[in-house]
Amino acid sequence: RPIDGVTADTAMPGTVADLMEPVTGLLPEHATVHDAIEFLRASRDAQQITYLYTVDRDERLSGLVVIRDLLLSRPDQALSEIMLPAPFSLSPDLDASEAIKAAVHRHYPVYPVVDAQGRMCGVIRGWRLFEQQAIEITAQSGQMVGVDKEERIDTTLWTAFRMRHPWLQVNLLTAFAAGFIVSLFEGTISQIVALAAFLPILAGQSGNTGCQALAITLRGITLGDLAKFPVRKLIGKELMLGAMNGCFTGVIAAAAMWWTAAHEHNPQAPMLALVIWLAMIGGCTLSGLFGVMVPLTLRRFGADPVTASSIFLTTGTDIAGMGLMLTLATVLVL
Amino acid sequence: RPIDGVTADTAMPGTVADLMEPVTGLLPEHATVHDAIEFLRASRDAQQITYLYTVDRDERLSGLVVIRDLLLSRPDQALSEIMLPAPFSLSPDLDASEAIKAAVHRHYPVYPVVDAQGRMCGVIRGWRLFEQQAIEITAQSGQMVGVDKEERIDTTLWTAFRMRHPWLQVNLLTAFAAGFIVSLFEGTISQIVALAAFLPILAGQSGNTGCQALAITLRGITLGDLAKFPVRKLIGKELMLGAMNGCFTGVIAAAAMWWTAAHEHNPQAPMLALVIWLAMIGGCTLSGLFGVMVPLTLRRFGADPVTASSIFLTTGTDIAGMGLMLTLATVLVL
Repeated sequence: RPIDGVTADTAMPGTVADLMEPVTGLLPEHATVHDAIEFLRASRDAQQITYLYTVDRDERLSGLVVIRDLLLSRPDQALSEIMLPAPFSLSPDLDASEAIKAAVHRHYPVYPVVDAQGRMCGVIRGWRLFEQQAIEITAQSGQMVGVDKEERIDTTLWTAFRMRHPWLQVNLLTAFAAGFIVSLFEGTISQIVALAAFLPILAGQSGNTGCQALAITLRGITLGDLAKFPVRKLIGKELMLGAMNGCFTGVIAAAAMWWTAAHEHNPQAPMLALVIWLAMIGGCTLSGLFGVMVPLTLRRFGADPVTASSIFLTTGTDIAGMGLMLTLATVLVL
Repeated sequence: RPIDGVTADTAMPGTVADLMEPVTGLLPEHATVHDAIEFLRASRDAQQITYLYTVDRDERLSGLVVIRDLLLSRPDQALSEIMLPAPFSLSPDLDASEAIKAAVHRHYPVYPVVDAQGRMCGVIRGWRLFEQQAIEITAQSGQMVGVDKEERIDTTLWTAFRMRHPWLQVNLLTAFAAGFIVSLFEGTISQIVALAAFLPILAGQSGNTGCQALAITLRGITLGDLAKFPVRKLIGKELMLGAMNGCFTGVIAAAAMWWTAAHEHNPQAPMLALVIWLAMIGGCTLSGLFGVMVPLTLRRFGADPVTASSIFLTTGTDIAGMGLMLTLATVLVL
């Protein structure tokens, strides 16, 4: 479902100034309701005016006038009597992300933009902030695997390469950790080669189980649900979910191992099936834990909980899934 | 960054009716501007009224009156003279997602809700639709790995299990495909056990490279960018990015293989390093292709391009990465 109306120029602005429109309805606060109505009548931009704004003697923003209140007031009243004084405003050099955070929950149709001297330099429409927020959230699934939030479909090859490649090198480094664990068990694998085929199965299952927990945790952080939901309860739930999912997918994987091993006339087939079942339960349970802990740990250390979270997660799930399988095989079968 | 103001009752509504507020300013179209101003003056809900709406003789919604236009008109004018006739409206039983699609790009502060008889039954604030859209987009990274878009952090254990488990069984089925490919090369692995440690490295690298392409493609679909950007160009770019990323991470992986094999006094060390390098280039290039093709293929078959896309992708990347490595090892080294 495309977000209609997203145009190239609204995509990924740096600051409030980039999203700003010119001020249209600015009046001195001592002007009367009659003056304001005459101003609106004469204005070519009347269609664009949602609120009028007032300035004090030093030309600083002092209030906001709702058009409805003009209608319900006497023509001789001063705007200072009917205005909302000291309205909420945004600074032009504020980061767009920060502006969203500060403004979006107020649900105003328009926000005034005010410089350091208190002078109004523009307005931002509320929908622009909402649209910007939606654009930022669409970046999350990419950020999880090391795509920069600036990257869009039309980003040039070279820029995309420069932004993605470092995280792929990080991913390689973490994959070496998983590879190193496997290499420790070369003796086991050379004796039970069937285990090699189950390496990607264990890694794939624990990885996907962990990614489910990671996604739901990140969603909770983004939507602010985690502030209301105790982390301990979330960890408990994901551990249990991991165990249950590992148990029921593990039964199928264990059956596949039994069948494979029996097919190769391996007398240890039942024991190998048990190894797979236990490794699936253990690997998926740990993956549930990692899925919650990776973003929370990143956040605790002041990092973005989304960026590269999937890369860090799969290191853990690879080691948990494959490491457990090979350890159990070494201990129980050899 | 939490989306403030998201409350439990606004989360995941089914229809427009769930997001609706009561109608506050409804007047007959033959009423005058003077009548409307008196109505506003007497109304307790004046603060909530953004627009007034007019009804015809059959009580059907016929127009929308902007408060500013009341101010600029003569008191004796009929509302029918100043209203915007036949305003855009939403149906109460419309799916919330469809309503977002239909309304969000109009950027109105409020939308009227009109039943099948043409009677107005409520209003929806524009920010509620934007908020709903943001909530839906936060579900995407979960949907990619088989988490239902309804699932939030406080979803019960049993409901989460029931919704996630089927996709983990699908993932297992696809992992068996990768495992089967590996099992075809048991002979190769038993002769060069060092290859086993590189299975998770190849799978991890091609998987993450593919997920980067997948995420950027899904972002393009969500933001509507793909409508303006030719698919062929995107495929070309992701193939090239995959090749470049595979080439430069592959060099490091190949060096690691050389070192490992030389350490084990394997005379084939340089050839094994070449195998890893070529497999990384080939695997990552194919992964770039899969990342674009998986969501586009899902969409072409009428399925949601997001749901389980990562599960389908990793099947392809596992087979490409590990399959290529084992094939090359068999052909070039044995």
